[in-house]
Amino acid sequence: MNTFGTIFRMHIFGESHGPAVGIIIDGCPTGMDIHADMFTTDLERRKGGILKGTTPRSEPDVPIFLSGVFNNKTTGAPLTIIFENTNTRSKDYEMQREIPRPGHADFVAQKKYKGMQDYRGGGHFSGRLTVALVAAGVIAKKILAKRNIICSSNIIEIGGETDMDKGLQKAIDAKDSVGGIITCHITGLPIGLGEPFFNSVESLISHLVFSIPAIKGIEFGAGFSAAKMFGSEHNDALENKEGKTTSNHAGGIVGGITNGNEVNFKVVVKPTSSTPKKQTSLNVVTNKPEEFSIKGRHDLCIALRVPVVLEAVAACVMADLLFLNDQQLNY
Amino acid sequence: MNTFGTIFRMHIFGESHGPAVGIIIDGCPTGMDIHADMFTTDLERRKGGILKGTTPRSEPDVPIFLSGVFNNKTTGAPLTIIFENTNTRSKDYEMQREIPRPGHADFVAQKKYKGMQDYRGGGHFSGRLTVALVAAGVIAKKILAKRNIICSSNIIEIGGETDMDKGLQKAIDAKDSVGGIITCHITGLPIGLGEPFFNSVESLISHLVFSIPAIKGIEFGAGFSAAKMFGSEHNDALENKEGKTTSNHAGGIVGGITNGNEVNFKVVVKPTSSTPKKQTSLNVVTNKPEEFSIKGRHDLCIALRVPVVLEAVAACVMADLLFLNDQQLNY
Amino acid sequence: MNTFGTIFRMHIFGESHGPAVGIIIDGCPTGMDIHADMFTTDLERRKGGILKGTTPRSEPDVPIFLSGVFNNKTTGAPLTIIFENTNTRSKDYEMQREIPRPGHADFVAQKKYKGMQDYRGGGHFSGRLTVALVAAGVIAKKILAKRNIICSSNIIEIGGETDMDKGLQKAIDAKDSVGGIITCHITGLPIGLGEPFFNSVESLISHLVFSIPAIKGIEFGAGFSAAKMFGSEHNDALENKEGKTTSNHAGGIVGGITNGNEVNFKVVVKPTSSTPKKQTSLNVVTNKPEEFSIKGRHDLCIALRVPVVLEAVAACVMADLLFLNDQQLNY
Amino acid sequence: MNTFGTIFRMHIFGESHGPAVGIIIDGCPTGMDIHADMFTTDLERRKGGILKGTTPRSEPDVPIFLSGVFNNKTTGAPLTIIFENTNTRSKDYEMQREIPRPGHADFVAQKKYKGMQDYRGGGHFSGRLTVALVAAGVIAKKILAKRNIICSSNIIEIGGETDMDKGLQKAIDAKDSVGGIITCHITGLPIGLGEPFFNSVESLISHLVFSIPAIKGIEFGAGFSAAKMFGSEHNDALENKEGKTTSNHAGGIVGGITNGNEVNFKVVVKPTSSTPKKQTSLNVVTNKPEEFSIKGRHDLCIALRVPVVLEAVAACVMADLLFLNDQQLNY
Repeated sequence: MNTFGTIFRMHIFGESHGPAVGIIIDGCPTGMDIHADMFTTDLERRKGGILKGTTPRSEPDVPIFLSGVFNNKTTGAPLTIIFENTNTRSKDYEMQREIPRPGHADFVAQKKYKGMQDYRGGGHFSGRLTVALVAAGVIAKKILAKRNIICSSNIIEIGGETDMDKGLQKAIDAKDSVGGIITCHITGLPIGLGEPFFNSVESLISHLVFSIPAIKGIEFGAGFSAAKMFGSEHNDALENKEGKTTSNHAGGIVGGITNGNEVNFKVVVKPTSSTPKKQTSLNVVTNKPEEFSIKGRHDLCIALRVPVVLEAVAACVMADLLFLNDQQLNY
Repeated sequence: MNTFGTIFRMHIFGESHGPAVGIIIDGCPTGMDIHADMFTTDLERRKGGILKGTTPRSEPDVPIFLSGVFNNKTTGAPLTIIFENTNTRSKDYEMQREIPRPGHADFVAQKKYKGMQDYRGGGHFSGRLTVALVAAGVIAKKILAKRNIICSSNIIEIGGETDMDKGLQKAIDAKDSVGGIITCHITGLPIGLGEPFFNSVESLISHLVFSIPAIKGIEFGAGFSAAKMFGSEHNDALENKEGKTTSNHAGGIVGGITNGNEVNFKVVVKPTSSTPKKQTSLNVVTNKPEEFSIKGRHDLCIALRVPVVLEAVAACVMADLLFLNDQQLNY
Repeated sequence: MNTFGTIFRMHIFGESHGPAVGIIIDGCPTGMDIHADMFTTDLERRKGGILKGTTPRSEPDVPIFLSGVFNNKTTGAPLTIIFENTNTRSKDYEMQREIPRPGHADFVAQKKYKGMQDYRGGGHFSGRLTVALVAAGVIAKKILAKRNIICSSNIIEIGGETDMDKGLQKAIDAKDSVGGIITCHITGLPIGLGEPFFNSVESLISHLVFSIPAIKGIEFGAGFSAAKMFGSEHNDALENKEGKTTSNHAGGIVGGITNGNEVNFKVVVKPTSSTPKKQTSLNVVTNKPEEFSIKGRHDLCIALRVPVVLEAVAACVMADLLFLNDQQLNY
Repeated sequence: MNTFGTIFRMHIFGESHGPAVGIIIDGCPTGMDIHADMFTTDLERRKGGILKGTTPRSEPDVPIFLSGVFNNKTTGAPLTIIFENTNTRSKDYEMQREIPRPGHADFVAQKKYKGMQDYRGGGHFSGRLTVALVAAGVIAKKILAKRNIICSSNIIEIGGETDMDKGLQKAIDAKDSVGGIITCHITGLPIGLGEPFFNSVESLISHLVFSIPAIKGIEFGAGFSAAKMFGSEHNDALENKEGKTTSNHAGGIVGGITNGNEVNFKVVVKPTSSTPKKQTSLNVVTNKPEEFSIKGRHDLCIALRVPVVLEAVAACVMADLLFLNDQQLNY
């Protein structure tokens, strides 16, 4: 239930206010160079600390390798990476037990885990766990890079504006939070990754993408705009034997399989659930509606932190598919 | 690679022009009434034969139970359902080997399977296999119905028009094909289905939804429109202890978990790849572009057949999650 | 629950008196020659029809390829093989519902499936399903043969005698049934197959071996006799860089991993549960003990049919491990 | 590859001389009391420190809960338990790289991981990791105890003697190491656990049992002695409707399914590979045979430590099967 992948397999764990969050990666090849420094860039991108609209906190986020690394190389045994939770504030979390925050998992966690959940911060539901996904992504991207496959992700819209700054200013002006749209591009892929039906490339990417908190939609290539196109417009004509097509409305995936063109997709990130605005929720103790506002640091726009996480999950899917494909070449 | 689900698990197989297509379902409870008649309605819906814009073919589509059924009851052993392929036309499939049809899997199949694929019709990539998904869906919906959970799916847009007839007429007038947008609603769900991160409800639904050929995007609740909302607008305020919220922008899923409200999502179906229009593709033998047109029966709008398939896959995901949840109740 | 393997994956189904038994194999490489004839030898070996002590029945056992084969080659899509059940006798199966046969699954099936099981013959528990394992084994052995890996299995003891004929005569004389011990040898394996801990080679082989009805024990290399050896005796000294050891008490597996020597193991097959002798069981309707005897054809010694099934499952495990290993070579 | 279980799922990791070894358990019910003390008894049993023939080391073995525990209760989120490796001696491990120790994984690890493995101690192959299995077993046994299911394991033979002391003395006298035979009994099980074929109870138990280092054989019930029995002797006659049989040659499992009697099995543990005796191996650098002896602490008889590990893995299998069975009761 807590595992993703067939060859390159991940198991995630942890709570935002527990001792650590982390990930085990199985199927990591032996002999990859690995050291804490190579994670720094992506971990910093995830923090988004310098961007207007992200929280000013500065957790250290140093990967600790509990297993699978020896003399700065992967051994081939399960690779366990943890991040200690050092920057947790003691505060009154009782409030959010009584008044579940709208848009947060407080209420469903309480019901699902019968009140036993670690309710501090988001507990196991916290965006904090994406630090582990980013770490897995760094490994996956390194595997892909060896074959000249590159995943990159960008913000294309914030608060309804294509100018990020303008979108954030809207949130600041309204004393509210905003969402955004992020795109991801994967270049250099061979033709033939993915499986028809249950393990289409779209199936696997979307599966892992919706593991990222706050994502509520995904579209590949032309996506929802395909609904307004004629077949003759949408079809991508084959141009050469390497699979290049004259257009790429399919987002590089046909029949669930990579077709040799760039794979691309867009996701929507909902506005941050924690907003400075006053909100109403049910006080589950008194059973009455209650007004409240969320205090303390939080992101005006969580979408700003998403690109590096999106790259990470895309890379993890592709590393797995690549390894599965290698096997097929060897009979 | 060809399996979906943890408890209620499916394995799909078959080619459109082979002897049969089918599905094994593991984890089906014992003692369910089962007979061919109960599949008729959904199988007919899938054919869409009476709708303007669908092909006039009339395959019988009679489910044959190879295993797991005895005296018209499920036994609890693996349930295998096949559909024979009786209505296959012999025709010249060599053409599509030479000139891969745009938007179809011809080219990727040729590359992935090194020319060994069954290239007749769509082979293993054919929409024909959705008949097996529909059959699994009938079983899953019966399981859900016992708990008063209902999946239903509707067309909301065809060819860019909310009037289905008008949208189809556009295709007819343009001698082209069109796509559409389909919605799916699931009511009666308990709070707490799904797992944080890798097995969020959105992850599992999207995984299986993208197994349906021609789907290129999915959004839950407010979906892509969330990108333009403030957090205070998007957040659904809790109204009562059963989880009812004043709005449902989250599409019934928070933190990856069902929250007691209706789960809903929309998908986009690309326009049918086979269009009456002349198209250009590469002749991979001569290595030159070539004009061609697809003859014979085909759907003007494959989206018309999608609702029952969408219901089916949604029901399969929910049946599995329900069984997983039952386990959690029993410690 | 009904699946085995990671890359070379199998899903088994069917009942002895239903329409068919069969297997889906995922992960079969594309382009393998495949035709019904190549299954004949192993299917005949399984029937054991010419051996003293096996039943005189002669089912045709012709494999039917429902999917994954085109122009006598594997396509790479899921390969489905079924065997129709043509040689089923109509007889009074009600008896075994009332008086569960000792050593058979009648009683547990009744309880597990709440009386809904197909109780004719062994139903889903029938040894009939091993025909599907043998078919999968033929494919797996062909994959292995390409790398010069050979699985072979022999009877080493029947009814306590190393002379098969003498052991069977004991059963005939006693009007009873007997068991046996079967060995399996796998040569040509590379060093390094298997994974430490959960997927040790012993774990995977034993998992699938215990799927064969009537097997109740397995030992690798020196096996149980190791309990009486000193460490200095049991340890296999390394002789050359290819891994050859001076002895092979480890049965070719150290730390769960193949070490370059022959893998070998022995299994015990219990005496056929159906014996000509009078037996007592509980009549679950009257709730009183009742004497009965089993009429009709049955094997005096089911062990005679086991070698080809043992080879088959060993080959399936090894094919899967080989494919997993290929992946590791490719970073 | 590094995962076992369907509902109660484990992922193991770590090396003997790395920072820690550990295990993630998914599917652990919410609300179980959990504190370090409840692990002490079993962790002490595993150390076997007070037994003649076990090493005198005294590692603290304190479980650290990285995730899934809050206020001394399981939350339902993935439960991660680690054990730090504090008692590791710095010594010259170069020797065992040059001269792979017979019976150890040194050679296969070198080949499988291309020289990148953590070669200190047994690295990832070390018996040290069984501490993590024992921890998982404590949790599983607690789950089982709630339903009055008990796993217990005993030594029945050491060094060929049924008197443990005498067997150990043989090793001491011979300045060598010895193996043993261990039995495991599981009482209180319901009828109907397990699945026919691929997930028979024997399949699942043996799979996990062979994950324990040094085990080379397993037999259920009468096991290998069944090979010398007649069918009429081996068959266990049904005595009452609760499934009780007059004998238990089947070891409580028929058709792969629990039959309501005690499940029991025996395993053989090979003699400790590290023996005080001089041994010969190949020096893979000089490519010449070389005599050597292993210095320092080690167990004369690793079998002494196995019972608690065997109980642990048996309990983990049973907890998983129990949860799977619960699901079946709920349609």
